[in-house]
Amino acid sequence: MSDIKRVVLAFSGGLDTSVILKWLQQTYACEVVTFTADLGQGEELGPARAKAELMGVKPEHIFIDDLKEEFVKDYVYPMMRANALYEGLYLLGTSIARPLIAKRQIEIAKMVGADAVSHGATGKGNDQVRFELGYYGLNPDIKVIAPWREWDLTSRTRLIEFAEAHQIPVSKDKRGEAPFSTDANLLHTSSEGKVLEDPWQEVPDYVFSRTVNPEDAPDTPEYITVEFDAGDAVAINGEAFSPANLLAKLNDYGRTHGIGRLDLVENRFVGMKSRGMYETPGGTILHTAHRAIEQLTLDRGAAHLKDELGPRYAELVYNGFWFSPEREMLQAAIDHSQQQVSGTVRLKLYKGSAWVVGRKSPNSLYSEKVVTFEDDAGAYDQRDAEGFIKLNALRLRLLGRRGA
Amino acid sequence: MSDIKRVVLAFSGGLDTSVILKWLQQTYACEVVTFTADLGQGEELGPARAKAELMGVKPEHIFIDDLKEEFVKDYVYPMMRANALYEGLYLLGTSIARPLIAKRQIEIAKMVGADAVSHGATGKGNDQVRFELGYYGLNPDIKVIAPWREWDLTSRTRLIEFAEAHQIPVSKDKRGEAPFSTDANLLHTSSEGKVLEDPWQEVPDYVFSRTVNPEDAPDTPEYITVEFDAGDAVAINGEAFSPANLLAKLNDYGRTHGIGRLDLVENRFVGMKSRGMYETPGGTILHTAHRAIEQLTLDRGAAHLKDELGPRYAELVYNGFWFSPEREMLQAAIDHSQQQVSGTVRLKLYKGSAWVVGRKSPNSLYSEKVVTFEDDAGAYDQRDAEGFIKLNALRLRLLGRRGA
Amino acid sequence: MSDIKRVVLAFSGGLDTSVILKWLQQTYACEVVTFTADLGQGEELGPARAKAELMGVKPEHIFIDDLKEEFVKDYVYPMMRANALYEGLYLLGTSIARPLIAKRQIEIAKMVGADAVSHGATGKGNDQVRFELGYYGLNPDIKVIAPWREWDLTSRTRLIEFAEAHQIPVSKDKRGEAPFSTDANLLHTSSEGKVLEDPWQEVPDYVFSRTVNPEDAPDTPEYITVEFDAGDAVAINGEAFSPANLLAKLNDYGRTHGIGRLDLVENRFVGMKSRGMYETPGGTILHTAHRAIEQLTLDRGAAHLKDELGPRYAELVYNGFWFSPEREMLQAAIDHSQQQVSGTVRLKLYKGSAWVVGRKSPNSLYSEKVVTFEDDAGAYDQRDAEGFIKLNALRLRLLGRRGA
Amino acid sequence: MSDIKRVVLAFSGGLDTSVILKWLQQTYACEVVTFTADLGQGEELGPARAKAELMGVKPEHIFIDDLKEEFVKDYVYPMMRANALYEGLYLLGTSIARPLIAKRQIEIAKMVGADAVSHGATGKGNDQVRFELGYYGLNPDIKVIAPWREWDLTSRTRLIEFAEAHQIPVSKDKRGEAPFSTDANLLHTSSEGKVLEDPWQEVPDYVFSRTVNPEDAPDTPEYITVEFDAGDAVAINGEAFSPANLLAKLNDYGRTHGIGRLDLVENRFVGMKSRGMYETPGGTILHTAHRAIEQLTLDRGAAHLKDELGPRYAELVYNGFWFSPEREMLQAAIDHSQQQVSGTVRLKLYKGSAWVVGRKSPNSLYSEKVVTFEDDAGAYDQRDAEGFIKLNALRLRLLGRRGA
Repeated sequence: MSDIKRVVLAFSGGLDTSVILKWLQQTYACEVVTFTADLGQGEELGPARAKAELMGVKPEHIFIDDLKEEFVKDYVYPMMRANALYEGLYLLGTSIARPLIAKRQIEIAKMVGADAVSHGATGKGNDQVRFELGYYGLNPDIKVIAPWREWDLTSRTRLIEFAEAHQIPVSKDKRGEAPFSTDANLLHTSSEGKVLEDPWQEVPDYVFSRTVNPEDAPDTPEYITVEFDAGDAVAINGEAFSPANLLAKLNDYGRTHGIGRLDLVENRFVGMKSRGMYETPGGTILHTAHRAIEQLTLDRGAAHLKDELGPRYAELVYNGFWFSPEREMLQAAIDHSQQQVSGTVRLKLYKGSAWVVGRKSPNSLYSEKVVTFEDDAGAYDQRDAEGFIKLNALRLRLLGRRGA
Repeated sequence: MSDIKRVVLAFSGGLDTSVILKWLQQTYACEVVTFTADLGQGEELGPARAKAELMGVKPEHIFIDDLKEEFVKDYVYPMMRANALYEGLYLLGTSIARPLIAKRQIEIAKMVGADAVSHGATGKGNDQVRFELGYYGLNPDIKVIAPWREWDLTSRTRLIEFAEAHQIPVSKDKRGEAPFSTDANLLHTSSEGKVLEDPWQEVPDYVFSRTVNPEDAPDTPEYITVEFDAGDAVAINGEAFSPANLLAKLNDYGRTHGIGRLDLVENRFVGMKSRGMYETPGGTILHTAHRAIEQLTLDRGAAHLKDELGPRYAELVYNGFWFSPEREMLQAAIDHSQQQVSGTVRLKLYKGSAWVVGRKSPNSLYSEKVVTFEDDAGAYDQRDAEGFIKLNALRLRLLGRRGA
Repeated sequence: MSDIKRVVLAFSGGLDTSVILKWLQQTYACEVVTFTADLGQGEELGPARAKAELMGVKPEHIFIDDLKEEFVKDYVYPMMRANALYEGLYLLGTSIARPLIAKRQIEIAKMVGADAVSHGATGKGNDQVRFELGYYGLNPDIKVIAPWREWDLTSRTRLIEFAEAHQIPVSKDKRGEAPFSTDANLLHTSSEGKVLEDPWQEVPDYVFSRTVNPEDAPDTPEYITVEFDAGDAVAINGEAFSPANLLAKLNDYGRTHGIGRLDLVENRFVGMKSRGMYETPGGTILHTAHRAIEQLTLDRGAAHLKDELGPRYAELVYNGFWFSPEREMLQAAIDHSQQQVSGTVRLKLYKGSAWVVGRKSPNSLYSEKVVTFEDDAGAYDQRDAEGFIKLNALRLRLLGRRGA
Repeated sequence: MSDIKRVVLAFSGGLDTSVILKWLQQTYACEVVTFTADLGQGEELGPARAKAELMGVKPEHIFIDDLKEEFVKDYVYPMMRANALYEGLYLLGTSIARPLIAKRQIEIAKMVGADAVSHGATGKGNDQVRFELGYYGLNPDIKVIAPWREWDLTSRTRLIEFAEAHQIPVSKDKRGEAPFSTDANLLHTSSEGKVLEDPWQEVPDYVFSRTVNPEDAPDTPEYITVEFDAGDAVAINGEAFSPANLLAKLNDYGRTHGIGRLDLVENRFVGMKSRGMYETPGGTILHTAHRAIEQLTLDRGAAHLKDELGPRYAELVYNGFWFSPEREMLQAAIDHSQQQVSGTVRLKLYKGSAWVVGRKSPNSLYSEKVVTFEDDAGAYDQRDAEGFIKLNALRLRLLGRRGA
């Protein structure tokens, strides 16, 4: 334990990572470097700096970075190109943020000459895996400190006692335990634990923070358009936005109309089932719109291959294998397919849902001339279908003859 | 052409198949046997019998069968166990009905000694493939007549002229062309063609027949429970129903709340893109509920394997390969996984959506004791996570060392 | 450590497990029950009983079971139906034996009221995983003792010292360390470690024990036939054998002709690469013959689905997930496909290889009448191919038009 | 039929395509442009020019191209990177040549202003599909003439009569029908039909043309090394070769040692089974060596993903979808994995087989330090395995508890 000299801690500024900061200083007698990422979680980051300083972190060792654009451009967007849904439903809002935090911690460790990194994820969850697979993949020799797996602060009472004993400010509402645990970034907010732990009980309304209850959403639908270029959303209603700004704008629409709530019982990588409540307002609209523009511009062979690879891709992201050769291979295949995925999707937002009502593209593969019920002027020869069916049926007929 | 003696026609009683009936009698100088299936399409079948008689079909050669229970039990339910979605979204309402019709036609052909079968599907669509792969798979020596690929009645005007010339009644509203084409059964109604052919234009409201517009749905949510046994829905709100009655009941709920509308541009098996509007009210609720009960009762390994096989399964059903060894192999795998998929799902129906709000099961694999944020009394040793992560990371570290 | 009362040890009778036996008695002060399986490894099992008795194991706690038939029938054969090859080449001879041993240990534990099980696999290999996933899957509450991960006997010298200090007989040739490590059963012998650890060096000839060097094999080929029924081999050269006897017989043929050697660098589940030398004489012939009979009797759709699922199946067996829902799901699919896989394969054995030279089956789907270059009397209409190609090409043409 | 002005024919100079040349001139009254590709089939191409001239093709319309390097570099090598095996065994020697011929025909058609292309493949085989999917994909508006599906020369007698009636020279040995049909290029020679049509009969020795009978191969093994750079073979025994020259050199080795014979019953895309005899001498060595260098240099995640995608890739190549988005997507993924696949493989060639006996690489991921049975100086902590196993087992234990 004693050979750690300097550690880079993923530091939110909240109670838990403040306690960890102090505990690291005490337990390892080492210098702690804090890293606080702005991923659009919607909290002020100033207090994080103040807290770190108060606890003796050198000013030059306090890193507070706005990573919102990198987050959306290099993590959320590639994942959206894949239409990734974990277990058919979950848009992976927590999973996708972890590799970026891990990457930045490793970069800072190199800059400041740290020999270790640390995080505040518990020993039961997926996030510890995602952080640490990122760390090890990017720096195979880094040391990792996971306080929740090491220390004896195994209840909230003891955590608060430790905080008080070390002059770590504990806000009033933290003294009573929070009724659930959350994680937030520009893509989503997740809530889990405590009041959510019985999967038969409906989630109470106060859990939601990013979306209005659909019942309280406007009684009139709102229509928007989302424009794509090579698989990525670039504009809303004709106005161009950067990736992070575009997602923020879609979050506004989603919040207003109560879009993107998901009550899920999922399978964690560590082997247990858990129940979470996710709010992904803008991401849900984005996912829906991306599928719609692909419908028009993606060839069937490419589309079906993507659909078959999708669950694997989502599993890799969920399990923390973002920086793995196999995720990169899948990404290479997916990105190859997106070159012509450009055009505009029109959506109707209403009471919890985003419905596609139209799509158009200069790269459309849809041919009204071919598909029409009307006279198609020879664009398609219906007699071709006979041979097509006959040869597709041949093996089934040979099977049938054997059976007879 | 002349060697057909007796043909079994899939006969709806509508204008098109009436014309086909007459055309077969004329062109092939053969006896026509009609088969009309009640799949819950919601039309009276009495007129079909009257029409067939009027056109000279012998009473003993008029088959009108209620297949609703067989349809839901042996086709819809197995497909629902697979969570099948074609191209990520479509619940396959038309595709799944075709194999049953084909099977019944082949059975009737055997009973009446017919040497051929015939259907009213056009040469551009998927249904011709689905019918004929079914025919050939079940009777490799059957002859197939597909009038739309053979005759010269290539416009509606000519079709109506033919009808009038042969005393086939043409209802008033058929004289002006229908603004779109539909298919219906207990699972869904599809609409395509004509006014729907521009995928940028929103579908006009008069196209919908099975669901109210979400905007017109009740302003108050409704809660229901759906109970599953071994993967199949068996009760609603505690009341047991047969498969067909259960689906009909869910259709009522779905209709009322505007659930299950889908505007889709899809890839047909014959190689073109088409745009369809689907209404699958009860099926959408069923699909949603089935996923939810699986969340609680299905092991991760089984669940992820199912998710990876799902797109392939859906493609097989869509393309017409229901009676194929590979669909049956996938079904064997899927059915094996469903033995413990029993329990109750609670859903909130509101303004176009069905949200899962709770699920419970005697077979639940969810363990509050293991997952809890609280003290778990040793149910899970957090230190195990370190070794788990270390060995999962080992190959990534070896990769990282090579890169360095 | 002190709460173990009775432990069932997988006991080979060799030096390592003898030391483990003693170490368990000392360390846990518990009663040890030994289980020795005859899986066809070709060693006398009498000495194992004598040794166990000598070390104080009660006679009624010494279990020596001939599992050869169960091994081949319920483990090797199902795996052969899957054509499973790990990393494209390895026939999984070690992997497939572990679940059976684990299952029997758990059964014995129940019979004798033991609360723990133990094995002699090291902490770097796959076998520990395979044993323990088996244990936990079959009895979630069993305690597992893995001495190699616990004790301080970390070198062979210390192991031998321990043995001598406890009157455990050490055969002369064990004093010098063995130049490599082996595992054997009726399906294969594996060798790894030490002289094999440099993957550039050719494996020395003295490593091989189950096959002659191909250069020393007969100069004249030998022909045999293998007969299958529903996917399983049942006879050789027309003579029926039980599964274990059939495999033994094929092993004789394979040994004589030097068939089934494999020099492999593989990826272990625990994250490292290792180099192994495998000899699978009879299994190689069986695998080759099974593919050949499938060629004739399996439909293309089934065959291709099997080929796509094969790598996953092999990975599950290799990683130790035999008793998992997903392996069972895949098995259900595979077994469904094998009902008609019956017939006879003729092979030529010569100098290290088994070549298929003929196959026939009453269930053959091969139709000389259809495939012939000669006049086929209408069995196949070549004009059907035009439509088949045209519709398969349609999407590519639409793509081409977009590109133009 | 009359609107074809100029057609580019894939012309081998043999009897069949000579008859087609004349038949096209007569039937379509059009100008025929001949294209003869040197793909390493081992025939003189001079006679093809003479024959074309004799039949009135303008000198500037006779194209004879040496495509050997392009063939190996851009078609064979990418496919080898994928380890593609159709139905587990076939190295796709015929399939992979067709897209290149199609591509060149379309290029020539553009150069000479032709409106159609033609080939000599029959209506029962796969080659028609491969040619025509290539044509249509590269020029959606091209017209395709497939004489074997159109004409009435349905027996060899009639073909020869037609030839004689039109002064097409018929070599003596063509008058008696050939006992089987062949296709050859630098990668392989295939033989099928007639004497091969009974899959139970051993293929007579005179069918083989590219390899000696293993029984006649040298009695002494020969060792060679093959060196790879980024997935592609670049040198043999330390001597660098261009792709085509390297494959030719390996063919020499393979021929001498009787390597690469395959007797296969396969499933054609058009729905029937056929039996073929393939000789792929150099390709078999290449495939074997490529897998071996991947063993050392490819991460497990990448390797297993490749193994799962392999059957699909092979199916696409076999079915003629080389120029399809999905083949290109898979290629992008595969190529991404090959960047570090460099190093040297040592093989032993003997009596029909190529055995890997060693491999080394500067990019090796194999770590003797980690894998060793000896003291590893802390490179791997065996206690990590416990946590790894425990968490992998957790879901199985929860399953077991439910079952109990």
